[in-house]
Amino acid sequence: MTLSRRRRWFLLLLGGLVAATLLAGVAGWAGAISPPADPLPSWNPGAARDGIVSFVRQTTDPGSPRYVPPEERIATFDQDGTLWVEQPVYPQVRFIRERVPGVVTTRAELEKLAATALSGMPLETFRADVRQWLATARHPRWQRPYTALTYQPMQELLRYLRANGYKTYIVTGGGQDFVRVYAEEVYGIPPEQVIGSAGATRYGYDTTGRPVLTKERRLLLNDNDAGKPEGIQLMIGRRPTAAFGNSTGDRQMLEYTKAGDGARLAMLVLHDDARREYAYGPARGLPDTQVGRFTPALDDEATRQGWIVISIKNDWRRLFSFDR
Amino acid sequence: MTLSRRRRWFLLLLGGLVAATLLAGVAGWAGAISPPADPLPSWNPGAARDGIVSFVRQTTDPGSPRYVPPEERIATFDQDGTLWVEQPVYPQVRFIRERVPGVVTTRAELEKLAATALSGMPLETFRADVRQWLATARHPRWQRPYTALTYQPMQELLRYLRANGYKTYIVTGGGQDFVRVYAEEVYGIPPEQVIGSAGATRYGYDTTGRPVLTKERRLLLNDNDAGKPEGIQLMIGRRPTAAFGNSTGDRQMLEYTKAGDGARLAMLVLHDDARREYAYGPARGLPDTQVGRFTPALDDEATRQGWIVISIKNDWRRLFSFDR
Repeated sequence: MTLSRRRRWFLLLLGGLVAATLLAGVAGWAGAISPPADPLPSWNPGAARDGIVSFVRQTTDPGSPRYVPPEERIATFDQDGTLWVEQPVYPQVRFIRERVPGVVTTRAELEKLAATALSGMPLETFRADVRQWLATARHPRWQRPYTALTYQPMQELLRYLRANGYKTYIVTGGGQDFVRVYAEEVYGIPPEQVIGSAGATRYGYDTTGRPVLTKERRLLLNDNDAGKPEGIQLMIGRRPTAAFGNSTGDRQMLEYTKAGDGARLAMLVLHDDARREYAYGPARGLPDTQVGRFTPALDDEATRQGWIVISIKNDWRRLFSFDR
Repeated sequence: MTLSRRRRWFLLLLGGLVAATLLAGVAGWAGAISPPADPLPSWNPGAARDGIVSFVRQTTDPGSPRYVPPEERIATFDQDGTLWVEQPVYPQVRFIRERVPGVVTTRAELEKLAATALSGMPLETFRADVRQWLATARHPRWQRPYTALTYQPMQELLRYLRANGYKTYIVTGGGQDFVRVYAEEVYGIPPEQVIGSAGATRYGYDTTGRPVLTKERRLLLNDNDAGKPEGIQLMIGRRPTAAFGNSTGDRQMLEYTKAGDGARLAMLVLHDDARREYAYGPARGLPDTQVGRFTPALDDEATRQGWIVISIKNDWRRLFSFDR
């Protein structure tokens, strides 16, 4: 090989290395400027969607006067009627009815009876029972498991908030032990971020000396109405930056959230779509129901306090993950 | 310029680019293989330190049979005597004594009186009061703020666990509202990861209609002894992978932690260093005390169950951040 051939090989090698470096740089640059995928594809354009996006942009932009430091990014979600279908009857109420004999009418009556019936049951037995029920129970209208009936737009909202540093919590009137069984798999929310109506447990030992937690009758937290901010104080210890609900039971949680300084987002889901889901109020002339009431007084407070009402009919393009 | 000169410039440019690329690569490689800084510099070599390091390595190595997925990496820490100095009297007991008139002897008596005295106080007022007290109170021996008397080896342990994906919790017999005031600044532990003895709050409105949470007498959780696993169930909803304590009040938390499947770490701090801190038991012939008792029965259970005892005298090279 002559010197000039060697030099040619050397040039080729150098040129190849440089070209590869430049290509990698260009690819990285193109990736950085290409628009990100829409995080909320199941939401129609409108005030609800705009309210979410501008809240997230402002609270995560360090240059914004409405910036919220990561450790204060707490978002709380009611479950029944906000994250999943609550009609014609709360899923957990059906679970309890199948376990408690006799005729009961109100949710409060039912919960009292359930607490008595479940008292003395090892927590692990209760959890296995819930798991078993969820695997077999079907919603009467869609004939699907209840866990398939979560709202796709809210699932996207949960992920969008988490991708922006928000810690997402469920704050439900339902049973804390019940919801914790499936919240991680269904919503990506770990048990320590599920707050609900909670009974006491008692620490003891089984016959082999192994520690066991047993359910007790004593109610520690009724996580409805004023119980929601009280539960948030007990379990989180700071005021949420954003809160989402759908009924009068969420009123105090939204008030408490909005009363904080700086940027705060409060939203209510209005079920106004009988064709794709259910229509119930009694606000705005919608039929009244005993499940998840959205009253005219709640609607008025939303207007006064700047809470955003999400219309399922208008704001959600798609309801469930199985919708096409 | 002749062609050969141009070629020489071209070669120099190419050579420069390649050299820079290679240098960057070598630097990155060297960084990857150089040993990381010691995460536990205040710990002496020994069984305690080895126990921590091998637990963390095994539970974070996806190839290990003792691997623990990130969402299950929960570590719970007692506070008084485990994270900070509890002698000659629990810091919070001093805070309460300065607020509650009359002579009281036991911690239980004191807490009952405190609950009555504080009842009806807005939560924000209580927090401001704690902040003010912490800023001015001094420990009688070191003449420093109580928040300066946290154990440096435990601070390193908290950071080491968090750097390895563990969520660190305080599970204290002390007041939840009290510890939450400073835990984030002092330990890097946010309020939602502080579990303690907790009183109820009541949601209401001030004269301007603004929401207010007010402290109530009713105790929701006595976070001592069996109350620790019960509190962990209430606030976290899953069993810790690692737990750290120093007295009989931590026994059930360590039992509950160790009774889980797979890798579990349980450790007890033994105060056996009168020169640098305090020496108290009554285990191992150390003097008895009413504050943070480490009994012979606890010592026996530690041996039977494979809990690791940390000797302050032997295992800690340095106690406080101000030690040289």
